[in-house]
Amino acid sequence: MPLVRISLIKGGPAGFGGSVGKVVHQAMVDTIGIPASDRFQIITEHEASHLVYDPHYLDIPRTDGIVFVQITLNEGRTADVKKALYKAIVEGLNKELGVRTEDVVISLVDVKRENWSFGNGLAQFAL
Amino acid sequence: MPLVRISLIKGGPAGFGGSVGKVVHQAMVDTIGIPASDRFQIITEHEASHLVYDPHYLDIPRTDGIVFVQITLNEGRTADVKKALYKAIVEGLNKELGVRTEDVVISLVDVKRENWSFGNGLAQFAL
Amino acid sequence: MPLVRISLIKGGPAGFGGSVGKVVHQAMVDTIGIPASDRFQIITEHEASHLVYDPHYLDIPRTDGIVFVQITLNEGRTADVKKALYKAIVEGLNKELGVRTEDVVISLVDVKRENWSFGNGLAQFAL
Repeated sequence: MPLVRISLIKGGPAGFGGSVGKVVHQAMVDTIGIPASDRFQIITEHEASHLVYDPHYLDIPRTDGIVFVQITLNEGRTADVKKALYKAIVEGLNKELGVRTEDVVISLVDVKRENWSFGNGLAQFAL
Repeated sequence: MPLVRISLIKGGPAGFGGSVGKVVHQAMVDTIGIPASDRFQIITEHEASHLVYDPHYLDIPRTDGIVFVQITLNEGRTADVKKALYKAIVEGLNKELGVRTEDVVISLVDVKRENWSFGNGLAQFAL
Repeated sequence: MPLVRISLIKGGPAGFGGSVGKVVHQAMVDTIGIPASDRFQIITEHEASHLVYDPHYLDIPRTDGIVFVQITLNEGRTADVKKALYKAIVEGLNKELGVRTEDVVISLVDVKRENWSFGNGLAQFAL
């Protein structure tokens, strides 16, 4: 049920965006209990001038290898589960794709179960 | 007051994105009680590799005709109203534009009334 | 901690999107108490047919100079603080860049403190 928006600066290797998407998805499967088949992502690439990040905020040095990940997902997950998700995304991107751990910014947006329709106009997760 | 983000795979007929936007808007007018003039939408088209969907999740067969619709709107609508909205969007897209009913994925994000400014820096919906 | 999405119609002066981003950021620093270094923004430009706005909704006359600003930020800010933010964004865009005050549409999405990771896979704002 999550919807994932991944934003990158243009100019990475061919297929890089899709690879980031795969790693983010695996981290979600591993930590927040979604099925492997529950993958819905929008990946966008931007001019460096249009993907703006601070290179030092919170004393974390960031580079143009920055990866923004914004995930809309069902509410109710604990802070600990969210922390496990962040860790898994960042470790996965680092190990699999060499993304610097400092270069991953993640934002979650919690929504209600009835806020989704995954086809046929039905609310598959409404109670 | 809703803000609607519609995401499609590139390569549809000319004007298809705008047509999808019109149908989604009419469904909102018909089911969630917004004025016809309350239309604000961002429509984006993506390479197939960058609009990622699972072709079988929840046993719903999806194709590259996939349409993602994410709507930010005021909180307080019931699950039944949301279900009516999903049904109207999907039926409208199917009847008007031939979109497969399986190919429509909808995500809602509820926000507070004071979370909007529609011009002049005022919060027109704050109580 | 906010993540800001700014959407414009293509064809403005070179660097216009980035300039809008700077002004929006300064307004946030001035009104909602974020550090100057807390700047994370995604700026996108769209064909006029794909950035859809109503030219008269709420009797506010809008033009293709429209600027959509959607900000994901921590919950807990009062309606008065949000109003101050809207006013500062619109006044700043008008004074600095000549954007019509009627042409600025702002949407806020409130989230929990634990919903952010700004690098290294840690939840820097979790309590």
